[in-house]
Amino acid sequence: MGKMAGQSIQQIAAALGAEVFGDGTIRVTGLAEPAQAGPDDLAMAMRPAYAADLAKGHARAALIVADIDWRALGLAAAIVVARPRLAMACVTQAMDHGPLIAPGIHPSAVIDASAEIGPGAAIGPFVVIGAGAVIGARARIASHVSFAEGAMIGDDALVMQGARVGARVVIGHRAILQPNCVIGADGFSFVTPQTSQVEKIRQSLGQDDAAVSPQSWQRIHSLGSVAIGDDVEIGANATIDRGTIADTVIGNGTKLDNMVHVGHNVRIGRDCLLCGQVGIAGSVKIGDRVVLGGQTGVADNLEIGSDVVTGASTIILSTVPPGRALLGYPAVRMESQVEMYKNLRRLPRLAQAVAELKKAVFKSDKTP
Amino acid sequence: MGKMAGQSIQQIAAALGAEVFGDGTIRVTGLAEPAQAGPDDLAMAMRPAYAADLAKGHARAALIVADIDWRALGLAAAIVVARPRLAMACVTQAMDHGPLIAPGIHPSAVIDASAEIGPGAAIGPFVVIGAGAVIGARARIASHVSFAEGAMIGDDALVMQGARVGARVVIGHRAILQPNCVIGADGFSFVTPQTSQVEKIRQSLGQDDAAVSPQSWQRIHSLGSVAIGDDVEIGANATIDRGTIADTVIGNGTKLDNMVHVGHNVRIGRDCLLCGQVGIAGSVKIGDRVVLGGQTGVADNLEIGSDVVTGASTIILSTVPPGRALLGYPAVRMESQVEMYKNLRRLPRLAQAVAELKKAVFKSDKTP
Amino acid sequence: MGKMAGQSIQQIAAALGAEVFGDGTIRVTGLAEPAQAGPDDLAMAMRPAYAADLAKGHARAALIVADIDWRALGLAAAIVVARPRLAMACVTQAMDHGPLIAPGIHPSAVIDASAEIGPGAAIGPFVVIGAGAVIGARARIASHVSFAEGAMIGDDALVMQGARVGARVVIGHRAILQPNCVIGADGFSFVTPQTSQVEKIRQSLGQDDAAVSPQSWQRIHSLGSVAIGDDVEIGANATIDRGTIADTVIGNGTKLDNMVHVGHNVRIGRDCLLCGQVGIAGSVKIGDRVVLGGQTGVADNLEIGSDVVTGASTIILSTVPPGRALLGYPAVRMESQVEMYKNLRRLPRLAQAVAELKKAVFKSDKTP
Repeated sequence: MGKMAGQSIQQIAAALGAEVFGDGTIRVTGLAEPAQAGPDDLAMAMRPAYAADLAKGHARAALIVADIDWRALGLAAAIVVARPRLAMACVTQAMDHGPLIAPGIHPSAVIDASAEIGPGAAIGPFVVIGAGAVIGARARIASHVSFAEGAMIGDDALVMQGARVGARVVIGHRAILQPNCVIGADGFSFVTPQTSQVEKIRQSLGQDDAAVSPQSWQRIHSLGSVAIGDDVEIGANATIDRGTIADTVIGNGTKLDNMVHVGHNVRIGRDCLLCGQVGIAGSVKIGDRVVLGGQTGVADNLEIGSDVVTGASTIILSTVPPGRALLGYPAVRMESQVEMYKNLRRLPRLAQAVAELKKAVFKSDKTP
Repeated sequence: MGKMAGQSIQQIAAALGAEVFGDGTIRVTGLAEPAQAGPDDLAMAMRPAYAADLAKGHARAALIVADIDWRALGLAAAIVVARPRLAMACVTQAMDHGPLIAPGIHPSAVIDASAEIGPGAAIGPFVVIGAGAVIGARARIASHVSFAEGAMIGDDALVMQGARVGARVVIGHRAILQPNCVIGADGFSFVTPQTSQVEKIRQSLGQDDAAVSPQSWQRIHSLGSVAIGDDVEIGANATIDRGTIADTVIGNGTKLDNMVHVGHNVRIGRDCLLCGQVGIAGSVKIGDRVVLGGQTGVADNLEIGSDVVTGASTIILSTVPPGRALLGYPAVRMESQVEMYKNLRRLPRLAQAVAELKKAVFKSDKTP
Repeated sequence: MGKMAGQSIQQIAAALGAEVFGDGTIRVTGLAEPAQAGPDDLAMAMRPAYAADLAKGHARAALIVADIDWRALGLAAAIVVARPRLAMACVTQAMDHGPLIAPGIHPSAVIDASAEIGPGAAIGPFVVIGAGAVIGARARIASHVSFAEGAMIGDDALVMQGARVGARVVIGHRAILQPNCVIGADGFSFVTPQTSQVEKIRQSLGQDDAAVSPQSWQRIHSLGSVAIGDDVEIGANATIDRGTIADTVIGNGTKLDNMVHVGHNVRIGRDCLLCGQVGIAGSVKIGDRVVLGGQTGVADNLEIGSDVVTGASTIILSTVPPGRALLGYPAVRMESQVEMYKNLRRLPRLAQAVAELKKAVFKSDKTP
């Protein structure tokens, strides 16, 4: 659990712009879940259901939602917030000291003479920074990171252990790269000299299964790179491929979770959230504020409009207009999916009804 | 193929507590699949179907299941086991020398003065161990690994190349971390100042598609860490996120395969198996001895009871009681899934019956 | 965008074996998408739909398909190709200088005295090469890569940052390993002393939910390794597990995209394409020229015939004959999947018809 220098309930509430009830002079030194909270913790009771847990713990003060009767739970003070997750963002940010990356450049780092390191940047052990690479001011680069030739990252970036930034990749300010992510891997683009089986099937939708003559794949090289805006986060072990001719693009404020895969030539707008293990195939275009649930897949060359939201593991096989909420494989509107599923579950009853009708009409449950 | 100093069939059978038939004095120096076995190999014929392969190979001795007639296949000796995979565990363990990690601390390793390295620990080239980190006795740490500040791992751990252990992560004894796994990446938790599109859709189940006003994501920082029990294995490129306030927890004896993703605040019990590419969203609780087939997904905030088993690519969208066997998207009991699928395949026949009924009843196959 | 020393349209067309129209003496120094092309770029207009974009850009010369009327678009020269992606392979290869890896062996690399480094190999900073490892002639090994003891890679290999090659893994000539991939992680193979819940369920297909007695997993060690042919590519953060007794095998010319997972004992033929996030469970056999769409999953112990093609996120739960085109979960022929899906969407109409029939036949829409 995070620890902070003691702060009064009054001070925390002021930072949140929230109302204090009870004794605002109580000081807390950490955050805790309600049931585990000690007397010096601020218990975080984000839902009415956590009221019972508050009684189990030993907090004197809590951050609560309006529906919780804090006095009845024996608290001496409460900060009441209307939007608890927003309060959580504010409080946790204040308490996060961030990773320990020693200031200055570790002597083991291998930095090309032509690279530019911004003022105040901290660079950890075994980091490699290639020719012409540019690291922004106050950037913090943890151990084992590599920036290939010509890669650039903006000011106040945080790059965690083992992240790989490929040649000529450009990343904006305040980026956060989680450990072992790979930005600027090669696009996965191959072609056979003659028509391949997969091309035939795309044309015929699988109706002609005759195999074509054996041949090997020739590689389409990725000459483009990756261009990433400001305030972007890339999850642990996520991968973003280079574009073929132009760059793969990710807009300002977009966040990628762990193991998200973004294919070559993809263009993602701003303020999107791509949750864990989402996969975006090549040349997909995604609008702004799109939220893709975990394991969502998007087939190649599709367009996803702005403000689209998908449920977990939704598989998108056709273009999606803006504002849609999707679920299922293949993806359809959430309410259609729920309806289709109900229909599927009702099928045995329908079959039973048909059998009875046949019996009544044909005097037999066999088709005449 | 593994090689061992010669051992007699008698010795191997004794270690297995299994019965020997034929000449127990025969010595073998390795294991082999039946068809590829040479005269000095112990052929591993784990299923009755492998009998034919034994005849193709040149083994003199085999580890077999009871249904195989070893004499008829020209073997001179056989060890007969009731539970062949258990015998496999025993025999392969005996023959596995493990990775070659030189004893002592490689001079290139960067180890903070405040870190504690247990007696007999071996630490490879380019390893980084942060302030206050603790490495257990006889732990073996391969090259390029990083332990951030305050991370701890128990005795007899094996940590493979490029594994990342984040700040304050605590891991028990005898852990095995495969290459490039990431333990303690940041939780993926964001909130918008006002109600977001995704919140609206969660409330309305997608029935109201009107987009909300554009806004950016604010980050909820992860102040918690990850706590992992004893005898846990973490697969290659797997990722485990930190908790928000409390820790993400993985119980004793649980094994994670390659590219498994465990979200923030998740709590997994003991002796679970999570197969390749499984994804667990934030705040999920999983009981003991749960086995999740490859690519299984679990949506956020759900509970999965103990002894649950899922088939490949099962997508869990609601809470699951203990002991269930699940399949499908959305996950239902395996037998229900099979039944629903059969019904779906029978639909054309049902539609045909309805058409005939309409013709008979309404003298037309159009609805009146 | 890639830059090349100026080449004439004539020269490029000659390399492609393609016809030139207009002024073949025009020189270009780079490739560009039609709308972004400047006067010194060769615009790549790969589809008839790109004609309009050509008019927006400033290219004087373009590589086009036959259906585009280049003169009407104001171009001075055009190379007309019949198979544009094949031309793309040729042109992009000519322009790709590849990553900058300095010749020779970086002084920070830790190379075991018993390792063999081929003539002309380039080895970057912080690379570790273990005892008895063999690196082919002219291989280029980027920073932070590790080859464990006894690993081998052929001539002209390209190994990107942070790639992990495990003990005794053998890789052929001209391999390309993308950043942070892991070849030769441990197989994920466990067994319980007595029958486990998952074994019971496999036998009963989930019809018996009674839980078995608690027990822990014993590990089956991976004594095999991984054997990879020539001309193979392995994507960023992809993982390939070792075999149990024999090796996991990948044939010549097969390409794996980012985050593909290949389980223990899998055998993949030649010239296959496995797209992003594909997962292959243990002991699967895959033929030649198989193309698996992104996120495709294959359950353990199955066989996939040659020339099989799957759509995105197809989940294969049973053995597949050669030449099939599959889609869906569970995977069926693409046309069957489309048909089943249409039937599902027609269900409400079918239910309505049954309700009307019941009303007509039974004078009630309730079942009698």
